[in-house]
Amino acid sequence: MIAGISLNIPDTTKPRVVIIGGGFGGLNLVKKLPLKEFQVVMFDKHNYHTFQPLLYQVATAGLQPDSIAGPLRNVFSDKPDYHFRLLKVLSVNCAAKTIETVAGTLSYDYLIIASGSRANFFGNTDVQKLSFPLKTIPEALNLRSQLMQVFEIAGITNDPAQKARLMNIALVGAGPTGVETAGALAELRKYVLPKDYPDLDFTKMNIYLIEGSSRVLPSMSEYASTKAKKSLEKMKVIVKTNSFVDGYDGKTVRLKSGETIEAQTVVWSAGVTGDILAGLALDSIEHGRILVDHHCEVLGTKGIYAIGDVASMESSDYPNGHPGVAQVAIQMGTYLGKNLLNFHLRLPVNPFKYFDKGSLATIGRNKAVADLPGNLHIAGRPAWYVWLFIHIAYLIGFRNKLLVFINWIWSYITYDQGNRLIIRPFIRKDDKLGQEIALTNELE
Amino acid sequence: MIAGISLNIPDTTKPRVVIIGGGFGGLNLVKKLPLKEFQVVMFDKHNYHTFQPLLYQVATAGLQPDSIAGPLRNVFSDKPDYHFRLLKVLSVNCAAKTIETVAGTLSYDYLIIASGSRANFFGNTDVQKLSFPLKTIPEALNLRSQLMQVFEIAGITNDPAQKARLMNIALVGAGPTGVETAGALAELRKYVLPKDYPDLDFTKMNIYLIEGSSRVLPSMSEYASTKAKKSLEKMKVIVKTNSFVDGYDGKTVRLKSGETIEAQTVVWSAGVTGDILAGLALDSIEHGRILVDHHCEVLGTKGIYAIGDVASMESSDYPNGHPGVAQVAIQMGTYLGKNLLNFHLRLPVNPFKYFDKGSLATIGRNKAVADLPGNLHIAGRPAWYVWLFIHIAYLIGFRNKLLVFINWIWSYITYDQGNRLIIRPFIRKDDKLGQEIALTNELE
Repeated sequence: MIAGISLNIPDTTKPRVVIIGGGFGGLNLVKKLPLKEFQVVMFDKHNYHTFQPLLYQVATAGLQPDSIAGPLRNVFSDKPDYHFRLLKVLSVNCAAKTIETVAGTLSYDYLIIASGSRANFFGNTDVQKLSFPLKTIPEALNLRSQLMQVFEIAGITNDPAQKARLMNIALVGAGPTGVETAGALAELRKYVLPKDYPDLDFTKMNIYLIEGSSRVLPSMSEYASTKAKKSLEKMKVIVKTNSFVDGYDGKTVRLKSGETIEAQTVVWSAGVTGDILAGLALDSIEHGRILVDHHCEVLGTKGIYAIGDVASMESSDYPNGHPGVAQVAIQMGTYLGKNLLNFHLRLPVNPFKYFDKGSLATIGRNKAVADLPGNLHIAGRPAWYVWLFIHIAYLIGFRNKLLVFINWIWSYITYDQGNRLIIRPFIRKDDKLGQEIALTNELE
Repeated sequence: MIAGISLNIPDTTKPRVVIIGGGFGGLNLVKKLPLKEFQVVMFDKHNYHTFQPLLYQVATAGLQPDSIAGPLRNVFSDKPDYHFRLLKVLSVNCAAKTIETVAGTLSYDYLIIASGSRANFFGNTDVQKLSFPLKTIPEALNLRSQLMQVFEIAGITNDPAQKARLMNIALVGAGPTGVETAGALAELRKYVLPKDYPDLDFTKMNIYLIEGSSRVLPSMSEYASTKAKKSLEKMKVIVKTNSFVDGYDGKTVRLKSGETIEAQTVVWSAGVTGDILAGLALDSIEHGRILVDHHCEVLGTKGIYAIGDVASMESSDYPNGHPGVAQVAIQMGTYLGKNLLNFHLRLPVNPFKYFDKGSLATIGRNKAVADLPGNLHIAGRPAWYVWLFIHIAYLIGFRNKLLVFINWIWSYITYDQGNRLIIRPFIRKDDKLGQEIALTNELE
């Protein structure tokens, strides 16, 4: 608690719904909630919703940050009795039905945990300190800042080993984020970087994609994996499946096999863990996710729900819970938004049923893979069009759709990625050379 | 000097032109230079050119940062023997004809100082530490981050004096930057903020515009000043002319008159000073600018030129040098780019002559003032169209023109400013409450 501040949420006779997180889950929940029946209070640590599937394009200079985000106050500014607070929720007291923040305590009738997930480093603190996760806009801009600086420094170093290391990039985890980032980097290497840095030899730049399982895109079909791997290898991405990262010291990635890879930049997308709220009973948490019943209600609680990445709902189709993808969060948010009044009125409600609309991943220009409903698997240009269309369709707001669309047409025609600004002062603390140069350059 | 790095500029038989700064001056210089005749090396601390006249729109959530910038490597990537280094030039040795960087020494045949200007705090270190200048993109994003956070905190504080202070904004200096920022803030207050923060009473938010001289826009016509002041006051900006800031402690602005203004946010645009290169003779520097002759050559030197804000060229029309505006930098850059080969070949060259295309400032929707050539002064909607057209026309690159154009149309139709993301972790160090909240929110 910080003295002198309080949450200032008006008293109400309506039931109060407290939502933690304005991601896909929280946003779609509010869209469907009958806001005349409830008071809604949303908490988030960012003042904007992030369209996470396109973060990798912000990191690789394809898009501007504001194009894939929507201010959370703005989205519902026309709704009555909707309140946003830019605060982290610290804990819940299930017995008292209250949540705790630095600005004080708030009682709730319904609490919805939609806090999503963050990178899982599996306890490896070195990797956590030295690699780049890609889950938030500041993280994407930090990676962009790193990418735009390693080549600058590669151009002026006299140490050939350091030069090679600065130009190499290792991506750990070959899910959609790893695959899409690898593809975007391969295109930067082919079309953009050689023009920007004529002094550097980009045939010597290596992009490694390291995956623990036996295939890339392990959550997609075998067909998609095979096609994606073929495309990546055609684009000269070095794909290493069945490979586990054992350690990273900021310079050298050590694999479990004993093999080492020299890379100044490591992007970590090897797994996520739910952003769990403190105060929940430990037996309602499993593998970093909150166990919920078929109504999204947290096991062992009354009036607390969890949706999206942070929730784990066991079902016959998904014995270990649903995959941590946007569609699950969207559908759970929509389900809960439509049904919370029914829960409140104790009316019968059908259990949540996930409709798998399929999975997509883009690898590059005219290259994508898609698993569609009805066991339909496509690749290449048709899959790429589907990918483009779906991503535009799900972006928040017409302005964002238009701006992203224009950026993509522009990049497609010009083979350029124009958003290469270093606007975050990121230089890794262990990078002595980078730090020294940044210091004299007065990096802001 | 940092060990292990060097500039790695290839040796050449052509004369080497070293340019410090990729602003309006440096950029237009390279555009016009016959690049077959020279080797060109450009140094800048940013990897992008900034379109400074629109920085205030990035700060006030109207535009995205990448839309008003162009990567400096990219702009000339088709030019032979053009080299960019993301490094600060530390000093010049005029006798040896070399410049110094942390990556080593470089000889030049021609050195062009186009380093521009930075905020001048006139020795007031408190103001320097606690106020927001608006000369670079990181500075604009820091101001945006501050603006998006003061209202969040105002909504949760229990101290009425603190709440009032958090909502007030003082702008010091009523040149174009101060006037345009004041207008943009007044529109945010009118159209955007009350919807975003329904709990706050925006009739209590004060915007102060403080100017030392007797009128706003002192560099423009009396007509423009009068019209601009009337528009600003109609938009409820509190204009204080003949007022000098004596001090600021992070909470209270003290004026020389003894009057005080409570404001958590102070934007400083009260003056600039040239970014002077160390190593020049002291008698070639006056009032923070480098004295140049009518060929832009620095007085007392051979082969060193200065252009734009950092240069001061005495002439009958401008006895104290030209105004520090984009047009002067553009025209000097163009002049030098066209004539450097003639200087090199010792051919006769006409002196630089500044053609004043006029001055513009926008105050808000359909509101602007313009002093045009031929002593033509206009205001209101026609001036606003001229302003829009000129700013689009001078933006670098078709993509930027298009993106800014769409953002403007969007804002015009919706009365919304969509780019409200907090993407820089700015919280002022003396702001204890803000720091504490940021800490628990894990502000990235």
